[in-house]
Amino acid sequence: MTVIKNPFRPYDEKQETQDGVYSQSELGLANRNNGILLETLKLDITPTGAHYLLNHFDVPILDADSHLLQLTGAFDAPRGLTMRDIRELPTKTMPVTMECAGNGRAGVSPRSHSMPWMYEAVGTSNWTGTELAPIIAAAKPHNNVVEISFTGADYGFDMGEGHYFGRSLTLEQLAELDVMLVYEMNGEPLLPQHGAPLRIIVPGWYGMASVKWLTTIEALTKPYNGFQQVRTYQFRETAEDPGRPIQKIRVKSLMVPPGVPDWSSRKRYVQAGTVELVGRAWSGGGRSIEKVEVKIGGEWYPAEIKPSQDRYAWTKWKRSWNAEPGEHVLRCRATDSEGNTQPLDPPWDIAGFANNSAQKVHVFVE
Amino acid sequence: MTVIKNPFRPYDEKQETQDGVYSQSELGLANRNNGILLETLKLDITPTGAHYLLNHFDVPILDADSHLLQLTGAFDAPRGLTMRDIRELPTKTMPVTMECAGNGRAGVSPRSHSMPWMYEAVGTSNWTGTELAPIIAAAKPHNNVVEISFTGADYGFDMGEGHYFGRSLTLEQLAELDVMLVYEMNGEPLLPQHGAPLRIIVPGWYGMASVKWLTTIEALTKPYNGFQQVRTYQFRETAEDPGRPIQKIRVKSLMVPPGVPDWSSRKRYVQAGTVELVGRAWSGGGRSIEKVEVKIGGEWYPAEIKPSQDRYAWTKWKRSWNAEPGEHVLRCRATDSEGNTQPLDPPWDIAGFANNSAQKVHVFVE
Repeated sequence: MTVIKNPFRPYDEKQETQDGVYSQSELGLANRNNGILLETLKLDITPTGAHYLLNHFDVPILDADSHLLQLTGAFDAPRGLTMRDIRELPTKTMPVTMECAGNGRAGVSPRSHSMPWMYEAVGTSNWTGTELAPIIAAAKPHNNVVEISFTGADYGFDMGEGHYFGRSLTLEQLAELDVMLVYEMNGEPLLPQHGAPLRIIVPGWYGMASVKWLTTIEALTKPYNGFQQVRTYQFRETAEDPGRPIQKIRVKSLMVPPGVPDWSSRKRYVQAGTVELVGRAWSGGGRSIEKVEVKIGGEWYPAEIKPSQDRYAWTKWKRSWNAEPGEHVLRCRATDSEGNTQPLDPPWDIAGFANNSAQKVHVFVE
Repeated sequence: MTVIKNPFRPYDEKQETQDGVYSQSELGLANRNNGILLETLKLDITPTGAHYLLNHFDVPILDADSHLLQLTGAFDAPRGLTMRDIRELPTKTMPVTMECAGNGRAGVSPRSHSMPWMYEAVGTSNWTGTELAPIIAAAKPHNNVVEISFTGADYGFDMGEGHYFGRSLTLEQLAELDVMLVYEMNGEPLLPQHGAPLRIIVPGWYGMASVKWLTTIEALTKPYNGFQQVRTYQFRETAEDPGRPIQKIRVKSLMVPPGVPDWSSRKRYVQAGTVELVGRAWSGGGRSIEKVEVKIGGEWYPAEIKPSQDRYAWTKWKRSWNAEPGEHVLRCRATDSEGNTQPLDPPWDIAGFANNSAQKVHVFVE
């Protein structure tokens, strides 16, 4: 990959946004990055290829046979691992619900110029690989190591800074999160766009932590200062705010839009009568779902939840609705085991991150 | 599937568009429907899940084991076929380049409110199934049959009309097009979002003809009047224009954007020196590519083309570029074997269909 040190034009284009309309560049991001189809929320596992997809730069096309994962930096036993080496390690498969930190950004006003997700940036897949912790331990980090960084093969510019996509975790975080080194998605080798041949999965955190096209794991004796770790993915209320790192996925729920759609508005048409509303709810950091409520006709009603068997996979919910003729706006909101409930309005963030406000579904019933 | 006869609210919402900005509903369509990642154009076959995806209504989740394809209507030997029956027929695999008729719509002004594709609505997959013609023949269409219709399991509303997605072909068209009944994509059973368990592929025509979630094949003694056949997918210059059906894919080419991207603008940064530009070119109706030209610095230069081995799959092209420092807009255009060349400006169509004007790629070189 050609590394460009000084881009011809420093990033100086202010990208304006307007409320309620989206720019050409926002459209380009929306077309390029893929959202889940909400009707697939009825399935425990999102069909391969329907999982949300967010790529900052270009998808690298790597050769699995020659791929080498370098463990480097402040390790006593640094080494290179081939895919064969990695596949020989104890296998683990885990379903994980992953959400993009930018999900809901399009609902935050004023809007930050970036990928304008509405609700679609989520998915649950079965990830197969091996536990990362033993690999780190076997490389013997020095006593003064504070963080481990993970670098991908994808290179590009953001705000004028050229860099490989990279993120880090502290040793404490590595110990408590069930981080996996992953090479399969839903029983098949990773697809190119989902990180082939190798990535990490940090379950319960927003998706930026789950670095794709992994080439390097580095033991660091001071905190990582990669762009994607320190210059973005921070909760900030103002531009001057130093920021707090975005980590665990906030409590969230989504509803399968009932009935059938109008092609272009995506509003829903439902026949009057009993309708079973279904959906999913999740929260990060291994938190479980305490309750889900559905708003119908101005009142909140409890939904029936089917607790997830898996720590990091979403919970299914359902609620019967006696749909009467008229126009309706349905909503759902979840509460997790730490008492966090989705707000009704988007929580303010200058970059539009982690908007977990309750979904609205417009339905016509006749 | 609940069939709603009279929607509560007839479709009467005029959906306005503004030049240069996109509405909330256009964004919703962009997030829901997936574009190809242009960097994957370097691959002969688009990675599974990265193929463009356009769904008018919801993706039906069908059960392959109980699925029945009904051959019905003016046949002497109507019948139902199970997936097992279909898989027992002679197998055929064919790579086909498919493009959405709406590709490029976002570049047509004034813009029609619909899926606002820029360039991304294309892909090439290996489709496996069986030839359709012998199946139709074995069902013995009556002498007065004029068309065969294909209906999917997906139901929704468009312009107030509720309908199952359906399309038709005349007997003449069926005889000359290599239509396949398809159950696998890239060696795996169709994914739900790509039509599982069964669809047709009409190679060389825009994608709307390749009906997904196929449930019914009907022999008709008068022309089919389904919404997707007669009320849309017509070339029209004015609202009063009766329209000419959209069929064969117009000649088109795309370039893999060189260098590395800026995250949010998708402009490209390239290091000065020799750069190999690569891309794909295609044309429908079995037409081959005669030439591809690349515009650099105001002049058009010939690209080297590698003729496709397959009648319906795109042709690869490449061109060396001596990239000099500065700001550049690169373009590519193809000419097919019938002498059709891509225009530089979008051809006018009231619904923004089939805009095959030459791509522009913005590159900074240093």
